[in-house]
Amino acid sequence: MSKKYVYLFKEGNASMRNLLGGKGANLCEMTRLGLPVPSGFVVSTSACMEFNKNQTLREKIEKQIFNAIKKIEKLTGKSFGNAQNTLILAVRSGARISMPGMMDTILNLGLNDEIVEGIASQYNPRFAYDSYRRFIQMYSNVAKGIKIEEFENLIDVIKQQENIILDKDLTTENFKDLIKLYKKIYKKNTGEEFPQDVKIQLMEAVNAVFGSWFNQRAVLYRRINNIPDDWGTAVNVQSMTFGNLDEHSGTGVAFTRNPSTGENKMYGEFIMNAQGEDVVAGIRTPLPIEKLKEENEEIYNEFVGYATKLENYFKDMQDMEFTIQSGKLYILQTRNGKRTPTASLKIAVDLVKEGKINEKEALLRLEPNKLNSLLHPIFNEAELKKRKPIASGLPASPGGAFGKIAFSVEKVIELKKENQKAILVRLETSPEDIEAMTISEGILTARGGMTSHAAVVARGMGKVSIVGCENLKFVGNKIKLGQKLYQEGDILSLDGTTGNIYENEISLVPSNLTGDFSTVMQWVEKHKVVKVFANADTPQDVKEALKVGAEGIGLCRTEHMFFQENRINIMREMILADTLQEREKALKKLLKFQKKDFIDIFKEMKEKPVTIRLLDPPLHEFLPKNKQEIENLAVLLNKTQEDIQEKVVKLHEFNPMLGHRGLRIAVTYPEIYQMQTRAIIEAGIEVKTKYDINSNIEIMIPLTICAREFLHVKKDIKETANEIIKSANLKLNYKIGAMIETPRASLLADEFAGIADFFSFGTNDLTQLVYAFSRDDSEKFLDDYYEKNIFKINPFDKIDEKGVGKLMKYAIKNAKKVNPDLKIGVCGEHGGEADSIDFFVNLGISYVSCSPFRVPIAKLACTISSLKIKN
Amino acid sequence: MSKKYVYLFKEGNASMRNLLGGKGANLCEMTRLGLPVPSGFVVSTSACMEFNKNQTLREKIEKQIFNAIKKIEKLTGKSFGNAQNTLILAVRSGARISMPGMMDTILNLGLNDEIVEGIASQYNPRFAYDSYRRFIQMYSNVAKGIKIEEFENLIDVIKQQENIILDKDLTTENFKDLIKLYKKIYKKNTGEEFPQDVKIQLMEAVNAVFGSWFNQRAVLYRRINNIPDDWGTAVNVQSMTFGNLDEHSGTGVAFTRNPSTGENKMYGEFIMNAQGEDVVAGIRTPLPIEKLKEENEEIYNEFVGYATKLENYFKDMQDMEFTIQSGKLYILQTRNGKRTPTASLKIAVDLVKEGKINEKEALLRLEPNKLNSLLHPIFNEAELKKRKPIASGLPASPGGAFGKIAFSVEKVIELKKENQKAILVRLETSPEDIEAMTISEGILTARGGMTSHAAVVARGMGKVSIVGCENLKFVGNKIKLGQKLYQEGDILSLDGTTGNIYENEISLVPSNLTGDFSTVMQWVEKHKVVKVFANADTPQDVKEALKVGAEGIGLCRTEHMFFQENRINIMREMILADTLQEREKALKKLLKFQKKDFIDIFKEMKEKPVTIRLLDPPLHEFLPKNKQEIENLAVLLNKTQEDIQEKVVKLHEFNPMLGHRGLRIAVTYPEIYQMQTRAIIEAGIEVKTKYDINSNIEIMIPLTICAREFLHVKKDIKETANEIIKSANLKLNYKIGAMIETPRASLLADEFAGIADFFSFGTNDLTQLVYAFSRDDSEKFLDDYYEKNIFKINPFDKIDEKGVGKLMKYAIKNAKKVNPDLKIGVCGEHGGEADSIDFFVNLGISYVSCSPFRVPIAKLACTISSLKIKN
Repeated sequence: MSKKYVYLFKEGNASMRNLLGGKGANLCEMTRLGLPVPSGFVVSTSACMEFNKNQTLREKIEKQIFNAIKKIEKLTGKSFGNAQNTLILAVRSGARISMPGMMDTILNLGLNDEIVEGIASQYNPRFAYDSYRRFIQMYSNVAKGIKIEEFENLIDVIKQQENIILDKDLTTENFKDLIKLYKKIYKKNTGEEFPQDVKIQLMEAVNAVFGSWFNQRAVLYRRINNIPDDWGTAVNVQSMTFGNLDEHSGTGVAFTRNPSTGENKMYGEFIMNAQGEDVVAGIRTPLPIEKLKEENEEIYNEFVGYATKLENYFKDMQDMEFTIQSGKLYILQTRNGKRTPTASLKIAVDLVKEGKINEKEALLRLEPNKLNSLLHPIFNEAELKKRKPIASGLPASPGGAFGKIAFSVEKVIELKKENQKAILVRLETSPEDIEAMTISEGILTARGGMTSHAAVVARGMGKVSIVGCENLKFVGNKIKLGQKLYQEGDILSLDGTTGNIYENEISLVPSNLTGDFSTVMQWVEKHKVVKVFANADTPQDVKEALKVGAEGIGLCRTEHMFFQENRINIMREMILADTLQEREKALKKLLKFQKKDFIDIFKEMKEKPVTIRLLDPPLHEFLPKNKQEIENLAVLLNKTQEDIQEKVVKLHEFNPMLGHRGLRIAVTYPEIYQMQTRAIIEAGIEVKTKYDINSNIEIMIPLTICAREFLHVKKDIKETANEIIKSANLKLNYKIGAMIETPRASLLADEFAGIADFFSFGTNDLTQLVYAFSRDDSEKFLDDYYEKNIFKINPFDKIDEKGVGKLMKYAIKNAKKVNPDLKIGVCGEHGGEADSIDFFVNLGISYVSCSPFRVPIAKLACTISSLKIKN
Repeated sequence: MSKKYVYLFKEGNASMRNLLGGKGANLCEMTRLGLPVPSGFVVSTSACMEFNKNQTLREKIEKQIFNAIKKIEKLTGKSFGNAQNTLILAVRSGARISMPGMMDTILNLGLNDEIVEGIASQYNPRFAYDSYRRFIQMYSNVAKGIKIEEFENLIDVIKQQENIILDKDLTTENFKDLIKLYKKIYKKNTGEEFPQDVKIQLMEAVNAVFGSWFNQRAVLYRRINNIPDDWGTAVNVQSMTFGNLDEHSGTGVAFTRNPSTGENKMYGEFIMNAQGEDVVAGIRTPLPIEKLKEENEEIYNEFVGYATKLENYFKDMQDMEFTIQSGKLYILQTRNGKRTPTASLKIAVDLVKEGKINEKEALLRLEPNKLNSLLHPIFNEAELKKRKPIASGLPASPGGAFGKIAFSVEKVIELKKENQKAILVRLETSPEDIEAMTISEGILTARGGMTSHAAVVARGMGKVSIVGCENLKFVGNKIKLGQKLYQEGDILSLDGTTGNIYENEISLVPSNLTGDFSTVMQWVEKHKVVKVFANADTPQDVKEALKVGAEGIGLCRTEHMFFQENRINIMREMILADTLQEREKALKKLLKFQKKDFIDIFKEMKEKPVTIRLLDPPLHEFLPKNKQEIENLAVLLNKTQEDIQEKVVKLHEFNPMLGHRGLRIAVTYPEIYQMQTRAIIEAGIEVKTKYDINSNIEIMIPLTICAREFLHVKKDIKETANEIIKSANLKLNYKIGAMIETPRASLLADEFAGIADFFSFGTNDLTQLVYAFSRDDSEKFLDDYYEKNIFKINPFDKIDEKGVGKLMKYAIKNAKKVNPDLKIGVCGEHGGEADSIDFFVNLGISYVSCSPFRVPIAKLACTISSLKIKN
């Protein structure tokens, strides 16, 4: 028997998401649950991918489709292509996970010159011709790539000719005229007549939906959302129901809970006498779902019943589409609803409270990277109080943002290149705007409701957004907002939480962890396995880190302690020393400062681990570069300017990243690490004797490339430390670990595993070396890589699993062979990014370390990843 | 039964080299062959390594040793420690491969205050007391680490007191006095009396030899010669024979062929009435071996007989030591003799001619890295003719060298650090000088013969050396050489081939491949498997490459074509272009030059492969840096200096190695690679149509990190090339390969294997990235790494098998899974280094590419490595 590519709704269920797509699987499930779903079938995702590779499958798929059509005809009592009692179809894409607005849909399929007349006589002529012109427009656009504007401009022309303002005032004759004009456009673009054979229409539509998986905006969306290219989309072919058939018809969308706040109250919109696309596209402003009760209480109650049933069944907030055709309700779609980060927390917490899911299930539904925005800035409350909004709109996606006004994708990109913040301001947004939305700070639109494209996409991105701002008008190359005109480059501030818009900049502050977030973090503490440390370099940083829940310090960059004004010149004195004696004299002065810092840090951290990285950057980084500074330093150190200049030149490196840095400095100047060791150990002794604190000291050696080198430096540190401990006559534990941040250290991890007390992957440097990318220089050319579709993601933002990750996996595997209990951490920037954390946790690391502000999300991410592994 | 650590000579044979060391195994073999070898036994190398780890083995080893002593007593009829008829022992080290002078020996062991009197009465008193004082001296030095000078100074004092000039004039009473003084030194240094128990003497001696494996100079020697630390040394304990017993006694060393020239004529030296150490140490000037015939024809003939027997048995030139004791000949040692590179070729060719070995066996005996010196400079013949030598000595190791005079190890190191050439000038050399010998250009000594330390070691290193220069005197802190005084820093030229010494510098020229080398290269051509290409960037380079036998061009760096004076400014015009049009205009001019170069290269190369690397360095490398140049360029290009300065600043990179270079340039500016492709393809078409040459074109894309990036650039090259070929209306083949020079490309080699026509490993960059070592910067700190014994070898000179090599192995394994026939080459500097080549050949590569002057050695190395694999 040949492979099955086509499934009737009754043949599928919700678990077949991979094969039938999200929409298709849920249509099947709803059919099984007895909901009023218009009859239809799904062409599978594997049909999409296989057909794309092998066009000869067409015949086989076509045969299965028309077999399914026959069954739909039986179920509906209608006949496809029969002018007297015709079956009209909706053809919709539906991938494994929802990609809203990304892919194509053709409605009203099955109409032609003859059938439209049948419909006209059966129902009403205006509806029939409107549906036909809509079909021609969508088909032309989706299946033949003709620009939608070519059609929409014609409507505007006719409206002007006839002096009509609203679409609803267009007459049957207007539509008939439009149909003629549309067909001309079709012929002009394709060289062919508009197809009258409904079978051709259907197969071309299926083809087009398959093809839409590969279109540019879908590719871009997948890139942003990290969706594999080989999943493919299913095609849902369904009997059409008409929300625009008459005054008793309508269409709407609703969430079982509020997707913006998470409140447990149905939230949605509907329009009577309209097709579904009108709601989603935000072209007409709809009414809130509660108003449906006034319109038709019976239908409203029926819908509420289905909504409850679906939420209980799927145990998550649902996003549903429905149509009312002449007073009968149809459910067209249900899916787990997209929500703001805030809402995602509230819904998770509420579902647990309601006993519908448990804490672990709730955690597994959260997306840590998106919750990031909650920890990102909101407007300064005090400043906000003093300001008056100039206008307001719907608060589509919360948070505060300011930036320069940009009207076009190009302008946003231009501002971004100049490192300036942009606010994208549009009449409405469309899928073409995705890229600009991604890189702007916030989005403001004049049209559209809470479920418009702008609102849905912005929420998905965790991006500040205000939509449907009626006081926003485009006037030439300016906008009128409230009373004033603004142009590109002027600064606006958007409060996505309230919907208020302000002139100029309002400063931002970090948000607090309260309410639902704090509940979720309590669950996290209960189920956490992998630890989260913070990167913190000074006693002040350490306090911040503890406040946000850091369980240790994973990276204390000791060089940062030298950059303070009163210390940098001593550091320079040390570097410029001509003899060991001079150097040791300067080091003694530095010792005092470092010891004091470590004492303060150890006092704060109590018995929590403090991982101290010894001096890492090349010495020349500390030296003055400009004439004035050199002059001052010469006076201070009683040296000639030439002496200093000479040393600056001597220490200059062509590639400092690959130069005399890390433990290489200690190989040449052992006294530097000796001083640092002394500072650490003496501090440890002092907090032990004075405050009875047993510090958890972990000394970390950066940039090692070979076991002999590591041992050489380790021995020196150990001898220094043990001598101090011995003279103090007490017991003090400390560990000496290796940073694994060169490819060579990764390749020789088994050798290091036997001699290092712990590992800490420095994924920043490792990424630089694996890619041959200098972080300082690569930004310049990486833009070309994004633009030319070579790179999707910056490997410094998210760990490169295929390259850097493979090396880490290799290293960890070999290291654990030698020492199965080896403590292994990650202290690169990736340690705070949820997808990277997921990868690391799966590699079996013991902790990650990240910037303090990322600690809560990192904890959440670590916990979720551990739970996934257990599942 | 407990493990056997001790083997009587008759229990071993030549194949037991790993267990018994080279010397021990050959002593056993000679015993088996019936040669007159003094009785003895070998304590195995595993005893050395195991004892070092576990001192409790002492008792077990001791027991086996004294059992063996009992058997030796039976064989010799003497008794160890018995004053009346005592057995005197020689205790010598002997590792798996010979490490001349590196390890320790104690002779005359078994003497004490009582026994020496027995010997005195049995033989002659002077001999007895001389032997005893020699024993005390060696034992004190070797077993107790007391400086040899402390003893030798005493001899000088006595000689002065007694007004004696030569050692041989010292009397028995002198020796008795010396013995008393020696014992005092011993006690002063050790706090103990000199041991009278011969068993303690023996065990301490064995201990000391074991320990000598770990002494500093042995470690250094192993590092230079790449000998594993865990081999250990055996200890050979042998009944002493005395070359200094009387006037009918003597000692000598001889080679079965001339170790300097390879001539098939016995070559050696002997001294009558002396111990062996006197010959090797070069303290007394010996007589040539031919003179032995005059001294004692019977012994001479007997010795020649053994020499022939041994050479025929081992099928290689032998280096033998012998002793004559009161007219009876003993053979103390035989081993394959060290030889100069020249001699190694002649001996190999002669042995093949004599039918003793075949070509393959002969090839397997050659050491390609050492033959390098033959391809390295000799003095310019014309210049040499005009010069008169100021002095001459023995031509110990051939070739020409000049440099500044250095009297000490420290001075050589100092000169090296300033990048200056040094000639080490010494009275004689000792193992402490090894490091200075390694880094100097040549070695000149006043004392010693062709088998002295300086001569043997220099030959082993392929280092120019003249020894035994009698006209060389040390006068204060100067030397007198011939008629004149010279001081450190003055320049000398040494002709190691003739032994002549010249004032000042004589210029050097490459040597030619003639005679035996050319015979060997004919064998190579017959047995070669892996191909050797050359790196060549210009038509001129290409001619040179073909001359030395390159089978293709493995790396043609196209940017080198731009550095010529008439081209660099066009290159700059291209880089400074403000618009695509301007850039294309400049590129058109460059196209003309590049095309011409490729035509000339293709004409030379005929159908041999030409691998062309497209532009690699960052663009800023071509821009002027100093004010004057910028000024000139501004005039030339009709731009302002500020414009140019601004561009220089804009293009500046912090880490150019990790910056905008390689194919990254083509991602940003596709027109550059397009121009290069056009130049290559149009050149290919022209040589095809005009000269009927089907060029073998391989285009190589540098620095790739991901398949998408490679494909992006490859597609552009292909489209450009195919369009040109199509318009030309002919068939032209070309390949597009990937340079694998980033860790990421290595980690993703399986992806590249499917899309690249060939691979070429760029091991220079790969080494930089795996180590995080900038070649431009690392030299500065690598000295510290050598000094502190962290690094043995510069990873840019010899491939790092453990790190870089592991990555290459991983890449090749995965690439071959996808494409088993993938052509894989290496084009880094390592492609011309024999050890690295051996590693690459074992990885299964298809070719290496190196500098033209290294091609012959690379061919030899490739062939030897392939033969080893087949063996």
